Formats: sequence, C-alpha cells, structure tokens
Amino acid sequence: MRYSQYFIPTVKETPSDAEVISHQLMLRAGMIRKLAAGIYNYLPLGLRSIRKVEQIVREEMNRAGAIEILMPAVQPSELWKESGRWDFYGKELLRFNDRKDAEFCMGPTHEEVVTDLIRKEVRSYRQMPINLYQIQGKFRDEIRPRFGLMRGREFIMKDAYSFDVDEKAADTSYSKMYQAYRRIFERCGLNFRAVEADTGTIGGNFSHEFMVLADSGEDAIVSCSACDYAANMEKAESRRDGVAEHADPRPLERVSTPGQRSIEEVTAFLGVNSTQVVKTLILLADNEPVVALLRGDHDLNEIKLKNHLGCAEIEMAGDDVVQQVTGAPTGFAGPVGLAAKVKVVADLAVQGMHNFVTGANAGDEHLKNVNLERDCTVTSFTDIRNVVLGDPCPRCESGKLEIWRGIEVGHVFKLGTKYSKALKATFLDADGKEQIIFMGCYGIGIGRTVAACIEQNHDENGIIFPLPIAPFHCIVSALAGKDDSVKVASEQIYEELQQAGVEVLLDDRDERPGFKFKDADLIGIPLRIVVGAKSLVEGKVELKERRSGNVEVLPIAEAVAKVKAAVAEALKA
Amino acid sequence: MRYSQYFIPTVKETPSDAEVISHQLMLRAGMIRKLAAGIYNYLPLGLRSIRKVEQIVREEMNRAGAIEILMPAVQPSELWKESGRWDFYGKELLRFNDRKDAEFCMGPTHEEVVTDLIRKEVRSYRQMPINLYQIQGKFRDEIRPRFGLMRGREFIMKDAYSFDVDEKAADTSYSKMYQAYRRIFERCGLNFRAVEADTGTIGGNFSHEFMVLADSGEDAIVSCSACDYAANMEKAESRRDGVAEHADPRPLERVSTPGQRSIEEVTAFLGVNSTQVVKTLILLADNEPVVALLRGDHDLNEIKLKNHLGCAEIEMAGDDVVQQVTGAPTGFAGPVGLAAKVKVVADLAVQGMHNFVTGANAGDEHLKNVNLERDCTVTSFTDIRNVVLGDPCPRCESGKLEIWRGIEVGHVFKLGTKYSKALKATFLDADGKEQIIFMGCYGIGIGRTVAACIEQNHDENGIIFPLPIAPFHCIVSALAGKDDSVKVASEQIYEELQQAGVEVLLDDRDERPGFKFKDADLIGIPLRIVVGAKSLVEGKVELKERRSGNVEVLPIAEAVAKVKAAVAEALKA
Repeated sequence: MRYSQYFIPTVKETPSDAEVISHQLMLRAGMIRKLAAGIYNYLPLGLRSIRKVEQIVREEMNRAGAIEILMPAVQPSELWKESGRWDFYGKELLRFNDRKDAEFCMGPTHEEVVTDLIRKEVRSYRQMPINLYQIQGKFRDEIRPRFGLMRGREFIMKDAYSFDVDEKAADTSYSKMYQAYRRIFERCGLNFRAVEADTGTIGGNFSHEFMVLADSGEDAIVSCSACDYAANMEKAESRRDGVAEHADPRPLERVSTPGQRSIEEVTAFLGVNSTQVVKTLILLADNEPVVALLRGDHDLNEIKLKNHLGCAEIEMAGDDVVQQVTGAPTGFAGPVGLAAKVKVVADLAVQGMHNFVTGANAGDEHLKNVNLERDCTVTSFTDIRNVVLGDPCPRCESGKLEIWRGIEVGHVFKLGTKYSKALKATFLDADGKEQIIFMGCYGIGIGRTVAACIEQNHDENGIIFPLPIAPFHCIVSALAGKDDSVKVASEQIYEELQQAGVEVLLDDRDERPGFKFKDADLIGIPLRIVVGAKSLVEGKVELKERRSGNVEVLPIAEAVAKVKAAVAEALKA
Repeated sequence: MRYSQYFIPTVKETPSDAEVISHQLMLRAGMIRKLAAGIYNYLPLGLRSIRKVEQIVREEMNRAGAIEILMPAVQPSELWKESGRWDFYGKELLRFNDRKDAEFCMGPTHEEVVTDLIRKEVRSYRQMPINLYQIQGKFRDEIRPRFGLMRGREFIMKDAYSFDVDEKAADTSYSKMYQAYRRIFERCGLNFRAVEADTGTIGGNFSHEFMVLADSGEDAIVSCSACDYAANMEKAESRRDGVAEHADPRPLERVSTPGQRSIEEVTAFLGVNSTQVVKTLILLADNEPVVALLRGDHDLNEIKLKNHLGCAEIEMAGDDVVQQVTGAPTGFAGPVGLAAKVKVVADLAVQGMHNFVTGANAGDEHLKNVNLERDCTVTSFTDIRNVVLGDPCPRCESGKLEIWRGIEVGHVFKLGTKYSKALKATFLDADGKEQIIFMGCYGIGIGRTVAACIEQNHDENGIIFPLPIAPFHCIVSALAGKDDSVKVASEQIYEELQQAGVEVLLDDRDERPGFKFKDADLIGIPLRIVVGAKSLVEGKVELKERRSGNVEVLPIAEAVAKVKAAVAEALKA
C-alpha cells in the first residue's frame, strides 16, 4: 500500500477525551474515530489489525473443530423471554420495537439464538459434539462507555457455543476451547494469563478469563508463585491462615473514640494493628440489610458475598439503614448487639480472631476485647474477602499469591444446561431417551484484543505492534532525493517484499524525514526500511526494528532478506 | 472439510413459507435458517458463499483504489437530521433510544456517517480523490420482508462512498466503480446487465443498477437490440413514434357503454383498438388530485410521474375523489370537462392521437372522436409510461427495445453534492478557496447476490453454483465398500486436492449412494468425484460436472488433474 493513496489520519496532540493509552494511541495513529459514545468507525489501519486478530481466531477455531456461522444482530424478544434474560439483563440490553411493534433487542451475546437453532436442527446424539462460532458486531448499552475499544457499546466479538451429550463431553469441548484460546493469544504475540473467573450474567458452572497483562488493566488478577493456580480477584479464593490458638477472652471494654470512624483512624487512636480490628459493613442485598464482618486490613469481595447470598445487587447501606440496624450513626458499627433478624456474614479470617476491636454501635465509641462466640451472633462464616499479596495459595502448600493487573480479552464458560433447559434443547441418546444438551460458550473481544495489545506494547513514541497483528509488517520510508534513485530503489524494495508476501506500507509522501519517522513510530509498524540518497550511493539502506530500536545499515538485498526472514519467523503458527 | 463433522442440515421437503426458488433452495440446502421475519442465520454453507462474494468484491474494490473501513451499525439521529433524512426516510429506518434516551437508528445505509468522517478528516484538495468502502450488516425495516435473502431486513452489504473535488473527478470515480462492478459480477460467474436506474431515496444525479438476469426477477429491465442502451423499466425512456399526420377532427360523439369500464371492455364493446383509446387515471400525488392520460395499451410509470411532479407518494384515487374530479363514478373518466384546476399530465404517445375514445365523465358513457387541442386542457406532455416490447430505442435510430426480468444486486449513484452540502463537507481548493465535495455512492447486496445467483442457476435437483462462489469447489462422495479401499482412496484424493488449493467437501457419511448424490446435487457443488468399490478395482473414479451432468470414468490421477485444472481456470481473475 502506498501511504499517499491511503487513509491514515494521524494526530500529533493527545486527544483530551481519551483517558487510557490505547485509546489515545488508536486515535492518534488514525486507527479509529468516534461516532458516538462507545461507537467507533474503524479506519483502515485499525481494521487491518482487527482483521488480523479475526483471522488468527478463525484459524484456531477451525483447527479446534468449531464451525463458522453468522447469526443476526437483531434478535426477537421471545427467545430472551424463554431464557428468562429479557427481565434479568437490565438496561445493557438495547431493546426496541419494529414497525409492527414486535419487541426486539440488539444481541449482546447469542446463547438464545444459537440454542434455538440447535434445538431445531439437532435431534440425535450422533450430531454431537458440535461447536458453532461467529465473528460478529455486538451491542451492549454500557452505562459508562469509555477507554475507546476497551469498553465500547458496539464491538466485534468472536462467540462460540458448544453442544454436547453429557458433562464429560462438555468438559472435553471446554478444554479444546481453552487450548485454542491459549494458541490464539500466543499467536497474537501477547503476554497473557488464563485465570479462573466468576460467571456473571452469562451464568453457568465455571469459567476462565484470558487476561492480557498490563499495568493499566481494569482487573486485578491473582496467581500462585508455586503452582498453576490463577484467578480473577473477583474469584480468587483465600485460605484461612490456620485458626489462631485458643485465647482466653478478656472482659469486654467500651472506649470513647470521638470522631474516629475509619480503620486508619481507630487503629491510630487506639494504638492497635488493623489485623486486631473487625470491620463491620452494613449493606443492602437486594434491598435487605446484611452485615459483613472482615478483618481490618481486608477488603470485601462483593461478588463472593453476592454469590453466597444468591442476590442480584449489593450496595452500601445509607445512614438511615445503618441507624436502624446498629442504633448508631455510620462509622461505629460492630457485631455486638445488632438488630435481631439481620443476617451477619463473617469472613473466614475473622473466625480465628480473639479480643478484637469493633465499633460499639453507639456514636463515638468502640469496643475492645470482643469475642465472636461470647459476644455476637454470626449467621455464617465464608470467604467474602479479596485476597492480598502474599496470601497462601488455596491450592498448594508452599505458594504465595501474587497480584497483577490485566485486561480481559477472552472468556470461556462451562454453561451446563442453563440455556438448553430453559429453551428445551434436547436430543435422543443411544437408547432413544430424551436428554438435555450440555453447553459451553466462549468469547473473544476482537477490538479489545487490539486495544489490550497496545496497552501492553507501546512507548513514548507510539504503538509497538507484535508482528502477527500489526496492520503492516514493514514500512519503507522513501526519503527525498535529488534524483529518482531513492524512488526507484524504494519501489523495487516495495515490490520485492510484497511479492514475498510481506505486507508493506510504502511511505511515498512528499514530507520531511522526521515527519515520516514520527508517523512510522506512532502507528507501530514492526520493521522499517529507510531509503535515503546518502547510503543508497553505496547500495545500502537502514533497517530499524521498532521494538528494540536497533538500527543496521545494510546492503539492500540483505535488508530485504532480513525482513522476509523476520516476518516468516513471526508468522509461523 | 469432512461432511460428517460439518453442519449442513439439508431438507427434503420444500418449505411451505418460501415462495421463490432461491429461498426454497437456500433453506433446503441448509444455507440459511430464519430467526424472525427478514432476519436469517447464515449456516456454514451459506456463509461460505457469502464470504466468496465478499472476497471478490474486496479484491475488486481494492484494485479500483477504494479503501476498506468499517462503520458502526448504530448511528446517532443528529447526522440524519442534518441530512434531512430523519424525517424523509419513513418507517424503513429502525429507530430507537438508548438508555440515556438519546435517539439512534440502525444504519440502512451510511452516507451520513461517512460524510461526517470525511468532513472532519479531509481539508485539502490534495486528500482527494478518496473512496471508502465497507462490508457490513445493515438493517431496513421492510414492510413486507420476503423471498429469503432477496428482501431481508438484516442483510450484508458492500457500500462505498467516493469524494472528489469536482464533477469531472466524480465522474471518473463513478466510472471506476462501474467498471469494478462489471468485473465483480463477471468474476462471480453471473449473467447480468448494467442498466440506467432511478435514484430513489438515496437521491443524486443519476445511477446504474446491476441486474442479474432471471425469469423470477422482481424488476423489468429494458435493453436495445442494436446499441448499448439499457435501463430499469422505472427509468427506461420511451420515444414518441413520430407524431401522427394531422387528421381532421371529427365531431365529438357521446356513446352509451353500460357497465363497460376497463380498456378491454370498452374496446370490445365499441370495436376499436386499444391504441385508439385514451386511458384517464385519477391519482393522488401527495394527496392532491392529478389526472394522467395514457394510450389505451400503455401502462403508467409511477416513478416517471413522481419525478415529473416532484412529489413523494402517488396512489390511485378513491371513488369519492374520482366523483369530485370527473363528476362520474370510477371507470368513465375522460379528459373532456374535468374539474377546473386539476393538473392533467399526458403521456407523449397521447400527443399524436386524433379522434380517440375516452370516458365521458358520466356513468355508462364514453366519447368518440375526442381531440386534445379542441376538447381538453392538458397541463403538460411528458414521458410517463412504461416502455413496451418493440418500442423504438431512445438512443439509436434502428434499435428496438427488448424486455427482461432481473434482480438488482448492485447500484451505483452519482450523488453530486446532496449530502456534502447538507453536512457542510468542504475542502480548500488549490487557490485556498472553500468548495463543496462531490460524492458518489456504490452498493452491492452480498447475500442478495448469492440468492440471485441461485435464481439464475438451478435445476429440479437443486442449486448449480458457478465455481467462484460455490461453498466448495468439489465434493468427494466416498461410497460404502467391503474393505477400506474406498475410504483410503477418498482420503487420498481429498488430501491431494486440498493441498492444491481446491476446496473439497469429503462426504464420509455412513449413508446410501443415492442419499449422498441427492445432497450433492441439492447443495450445488460444481464438481463431484464418486469413489466406489467397483471402479476403484481398476483404479478409476467417476467425475461429474453438476451443470452439464457430464460423467466421465477416469483414472484417479486424471480425475484429480481435471478438477485442479477446472478450478484454476474458473478462478483466474
């Protein structure tokens, strides 16, 4: 492609409304343009990278035996009512009526549609396993679309759905997808982790997320220093450090703590460690008050509490509810003498504590030497906290937990029979008996993968694309010269590389060298050949690697050979 | 691909709700499945054909210098208000509000979005010509979706938009697209015509449609027997046969024609030829009564009349309006003594008529020897009729018009400044003066092209795909055998063809030969190799061409070579 005949509207200034680096760089590199909140035009460079990811995904899905189809974006409400998600999904589901006033939605995901298809076409165990996938534009009406392609409303997704005769077969399908996903993100050239994750609105038995590691990642992910264990923070299990030895309960003591509300204030005021304090949170779980007890240095994991309670929403209670539950203003809650009938859920780490400090359920007062068995009524003990750095691994003996930041780019779910049961997707087994199909579903955010790649691969000059998903493999910068020699040599290099299957962008624009180099760095093309009049006299050009910054001045043939070799090396699947 | 591991749910029976053959065959061949009215799942075979068309389109668009981008499906109302189409487009535009109650629509076409993009990025004449295209899912809320992919609501379209500095440059862009379209449909293996067409809701200066010829086509298209002239019936111009010699007006005569309303009835009753009768139509043009006069054997062309009057809607008037305009019941209207102030538009063919028959504007009566100049007031004479077979060509001296049926698969528009003016898409010319951009737009219905192809290419046994857009080039039918020899030979042929780049479907199912052959014919794979135990003893297989039905029994190597050669021949661009 000739730069002069292409459409790469690069921008010097950092756009003011772009918070994260991938969003900034995709705008600056002319890869995307915003049409509306969370809705983007993919310009030629952006589309090329997206297509690269799509093609890798397609090849690996096909290799794993999945079959490509394409389902509609617009879906009738009937199927969503059958699955129960029409009511459950909330405002993220964009709904509308057609001209005949029939209800539809823009598909945020396609479990209903594909299950409907399968229930009509699959009747026998002989037709399974089957795994159908598509690469398709989806829409989720995010309340706060932001970060460019990272959290858009309209976005491109690969979604796959597996159908199996029983749980064991479904596990095999799941494992094939898990392996395919590993290969996909490896082939994209990304540094990633696969972690156990919560199943969220999709539901199902369990799931893994594929996380691109990047400091700017929205998700905290946890992995063990010794074994394979890795999980999203939402899901990462804590292990109790062993219940402390029995300690003799000391007499309860009421102390005045005027204006001391936070853990930091109380520990400083009373001269105790935060591990000696129990934090008492008053929450509303689906509008019912619930009390959560945590060790002072631990944070509540809302997902765990939600899953434990089986509720849909959890939020902090307002002052009025706190007053009603504790009899005191916010900031002085404790587990001693709470309103009857309120559920009290204590984290496992609280179970081993003795003679600790809590709020006194009275303004400006705390209690010392509280002991759960003696002083409080706890409904249940369970794991409801976020793990912290150095926590013992829940799976192995010696490992400690490490914490990373990551960006979710893929998610595989073992669904079980959630959708097949609701939509009555059944088959006849070998004995002619009707059975319910077991399902899995598997998603990859295509645009998000490109954005996450940029979060992970950039420097102060711009994007540093891994070659397999770079919009072009190589840029040939033809500098101005007194005669045609630079032009002729550049064209020759361009042709030769193209004929070898290298994707080349020939910067044939009538611009200064510095201007061309800035654009080349910004758009992140992995390899650059600079053709300048001076070195050309000796038949030489400059070969620069975007990532390392390494520069070599080489004879043309050698530079061309090196580019070909580097591309071949990077693309071998 | 192995048939046993693929998803081709063929159906024996003709689906009752499919009226046209392409719809029936795409359902029967397991290419598509309906999700809702006008909304389809593309199953693997259907998707493969669609992708083939997409790829041919992409290659030819790129070759013509167009640049691929991807715009969103969901579009904000603001842009449509700027262009004026928010009000104009009617109910085909699917509108909805997002969670923040902002107005959006599903894009039925992307003039607004692309013009908005260009007005923000293109400032100088140096940045043009530029032609941006996309292949994308669109939505039009058709009042009567039907015929499968032929008139769907959600459909895949290639849309391109060219931007130029002036009309001459725009004409060059238009002509490039016209040529690209010719190449595209040639490469798809279709028998088609490019015809002049009306510009409809897109607007603009002029347009060509690309029509696949098929008896089942919804459109009538017209071409000259002698010159290049070709047009959609909507647009095809009639040429007056030369005004008849002056004839002496005979005295007006009132005749009783009890119950004789239609042209057929009147001509039979009065013993005259329909060319001696003037048909008088009472119409409502945007709710205003209008009278149209046509020769008895001619039909009104509503589009021509609409364009002549500059109105949006035309419909036949009801009995009350007829009574009010003519003073008589429906069926006896004529141009003599109409209500004052009613516009009377006469077709050119009427201009040369003398002493003709018309309704008398009185129940059960007609007039003979009517003469326009003497008896009537005509507001304007213009071409408002459909041409008929054998009409003289409007462009050349000797040609006669021929009429065909066609299916529109592509449409190129010279838009002029309609959208660029409305959206203020301007640029600075070489003198630094602000000028308005000239636009063109160019669409291809991707799924429609596949459906039209099937309308044109089928027989009683199923689809007959032209090789370039067939889901697979070749099917290898492995028949059952006593030992493994058939299986081994089939696998070998399958591998060898695949390695040569031939797309092969290996029918490895455990089914009877007849069952396999029926499916192979139905899904329309161009070439079939049958591997049976009997001929295999002699090292031979059967090679069958789907279209001709020709069968040859050949040594394996020869059959394989023939398939390779046929594929290579059909795919050379």
